[in-house]
Amino acid sequence: MAEKVRIGIVGYGNLGRGAELAVEKNPDMELAGIFTRRDPNTIQTATNANVYCQDNIRSFQDKLDVLILCGGSASDLPEMSPELARLFPIVDSYDNHAKIPDHYKKVNQAAEEAGKLAIISAGWDPGLFSLNRLLGEIVIPDGGTHTFWGKGLSQGHSEAVRRVEGVKKGVQYTVPMEEILEDARNGKGEDLTAAERHKRVCYIVADEKDHARIEEEIKTMPDYFAPYDTTVHFIDEETFDSEHQKMRHGGFVIRSGNSSKAHKQAMEFSLTLESNPEFTASVLVAYARAAYHLHKKGETGAKTPFDIPFSAMTHKTSAEIMKDLL
Amino acid sequence: MAEKVRIGIVGYGNLGRGAELAVEKNPDMELAGIFTRRDPNTIQTATNANVYCQDNIRSFQDKLDVLILCGGSASDLPEMSPELARLFPIVDSYDNHAKIPDHYKKVNQAAEEAGKLAIISAGWDPGLFSLNRLLGEIVIPDGGTHTFWGKGLSQGHSEAVRRVEGVKKGVQYTVPMEEILEDARNGKGEDLTAAERHKRVCYIVADEKDHARIEEEIKTMPDYFAPYDTTVHFIDEETFDSEHQKMRHGGFVIRSGNSSKAHKQAMEFSLTLESNPEFTASVLVAYARAAYHLHKKGETGAKTPFDIPFSAMTHKTSAEIMKDLL
Ligand SMILES: NC(=O)c1ccc[n+]([C@@H]2O[C@H](COP(=O)([O-])OP(=O)(O)OC[C@H]3O[C@@H](n4cnc5c(N)ncnc54)[C@H](OP(=O)(O)O)[C@@H]3O)[C@@H](O)[C@H]2O)c1
Ligand SMILES: NC(=O)c1ccc[n+]([C@@H]2O[C@H](COP(=O)([O-])OP(=O)(O)OC[C@H]3O[C@@H](n4cnc5c(N)ncnc54)[C@H](OP(=O)(O)O)[C@@H]3O)[C@@H](O)[C@H]2O)c1
Repeated sequence: MAEKVRIGIVGYGNLGRGAELAVEKNPDMELAGIFTRRDPNTIQTATNANVYCQDNIRSFQDKLDVLILCGGSASDLPEMSPELARLFPIVDSYDNHAKIPDHYKKVNQAAEEAGKLAIISAGWDPGLFSLNRLLGEIVIPDGGTHTFWGKGLSQGHSEAVRRVEGVKKGVQYTVPMEEILEDARNGKGEDLTAAERHKRVCYIVADEKDHARIEEEIKTMPDYFAPYDTTVHFIDEETFDSEHQKMRHGGFVIRSGNSSKAHKQAMEFSLTLESNPEFTASVLVAYARAAYHLHKKGETGAKTPFDIPFSAMTHKTSAEIMKDLL
Repeated sequence: MAEKVRIGIVGYGNLGRGAELAVEKNPDMELAGIFTRRDPNTIQTATNANVYCQDNIRSFQDKLDVLILCGGSASDLPEMSPELARLFPIVDSYDNHAKIPDHYKKVNQAAEEAGKLAIISAGWDPGLFSLNRLLGEIVIPDGGTHTFWGKGLSQGHSEAVRRVEGVKKGVQYTVPMEEILEDARNGKGEDLTAAERHKRVCYIVADEKDHARIEEEIKTMPDYFAPYDTTVHFIDEETFDSEHQKMRHGGFVIRSGNSSKAHKQAMEFSLTLESNPEFTASVLVAYARAAYHLHKKGETGAKTPFDIPFSAMTHKTSAEIMKDLL
């Protein structure tokens, strides 16, 4: 095999840890290092990777090929992505949909000036879901698109249920309603509100004497639960610990429409994820490979997943994928 | 809007007719003509398009931008694709999976020598399903892939049920079993046979007195039905005519695996098509746009859907798709 692609991970939160695990699953890659703004000695990694101080990243220009930026979209990436795109090929998972064009502009300018390549907004949404929203429009031009998120763990709503008196442990999932998914497959329901499209499902550990009151308090909690179809399940602590510690997420992109008056067509893409950050990181790692190879071929500037052919994301040769997967 | 992409359709069967309808749904395209090996005067088109004799196609080199080849994979495309790739940018839907590498080689040589671009094996399988088989491997490297076809109209099995005495009208659909799909989502069932993965569902018009015998004869028909879970529905002729004259097809590509020991991930892509040829043609039309634009940018040789970024398949600008779909 050719020389391995040397990956650097910037930021060690959920996504950074996921990227560390994902690099291990890809035989053509090796982890050159993890970079953090915190004291490297305080970071306990999953695989005994080297952790460095992010301030020194400039000195790694000969030691790594591409950076995966795992900072937060709210305040880390708007600064980090343009800055680091001047030094390395990068990928990020920037997910503030409304501000993507602005982010693109800044990263593109930085990358163009430095002759580097940057792929922004990779992940699953934005990312794979965006690809499917675009593909749906392309192959069923006369139709409608519906994106649903969930079954997904909601951080905010889980915290809200845990504040109810007597709740020892609790989580909340947002779940698209099966009958509304079915409507979407038939091209109906585009004008529904979030509350009409999703239900809320809670899993709670509490003493039996408190169950009725807790259920009532959750279901009537204003803003958080009141307008929603809410179900509360009481479970034992053991089940909770084995089943509900995961950052589950996923969802559906459904496109349906007509290719002619007589004929309806529908296309659907869905994800069921037990770990949102590990999956997102797996996608980032694949786009990191693409950034590396396309940059080597001379491509520069900022790109989005729309611009990247799948053949650039795999470690297999064109002959292999043609033979085995086409 | 810029000048329209001028499309030529070669071969006017199911796919050719679908391509004619699909061009109409794409505002940046116009149909320059349909080319046939039969007498053009005998062809009744859906939209009053011009029909020409295929022998004269060479004289259209200034009059059209890209050809969509709608011949059959068995004997038309192996000849036509390399031949016409010397004259125009082309797309085809070549679907003989085992012979794709060979087909690629011939088309690539022809296109390279002529400085043209050819996209082969576009459609849904090969095509969109292939893309999802590859994507699944890329983002869930430690896992398994399952492709299911159906609910789909089976030409051969429909003919078989129509040969049973007393059957006035009849169709047969091959349908993946719901419980096996569920297993695939959980990473199980890779070693099952086709008969274990699919059931057969027939819709029959016949006199009531014959129902019991017809059902028995169908279910026990050797090779065709005997090993399968078969259901026979008797319906009235009106229902048959409105519901079962369509070339339905579709299927599922399911990828499931682990991003780490603790976390399972699953990705699924599915199509529910009321007209297999119209949908396939819609996909071909999108790849025709890509062939046109990428050829204009200087790309040559043969490519597969793996090599084409989705941004090359849309008529929208990069700024538009970034803002609306990313
Ligand atoms: N496109 C998609 O589909 C998608 C999906 C999911 C998430 N995302 C994006 O990914 C971003 C990152 O998500 P995340 O879950 O990885 O966020 P996170 O865990 O909060 O990590 C973000 C950053 O915070 C710092 N950090 C982490 N743990 C810390 C701690 N204990 N103390 C102090 N600082 C800590 C890390 O930087 P240092 O190591 O430098 O301190 C890390 O890079 C999100 O903002 C979201 O926008 C995108
Ligand atoms: N990749 C995918 O997902 C996918 C999906 C579906 C199909 N396909 C491929 O598409 C190919 C074409 O499918 P199709 O359903 O369009 O096949 P078809 O209807 O049999 O047409 C094939 C060719 O036969 C000729 N023809 C059609 N009707 C005729 C008639 N009444 N009399 C004499 N000749 C006639 C036409 O050429 P002339 O006009 O020159 O006579 C036409 O181009 C299939 O072989 C399959 O490989 C691919």
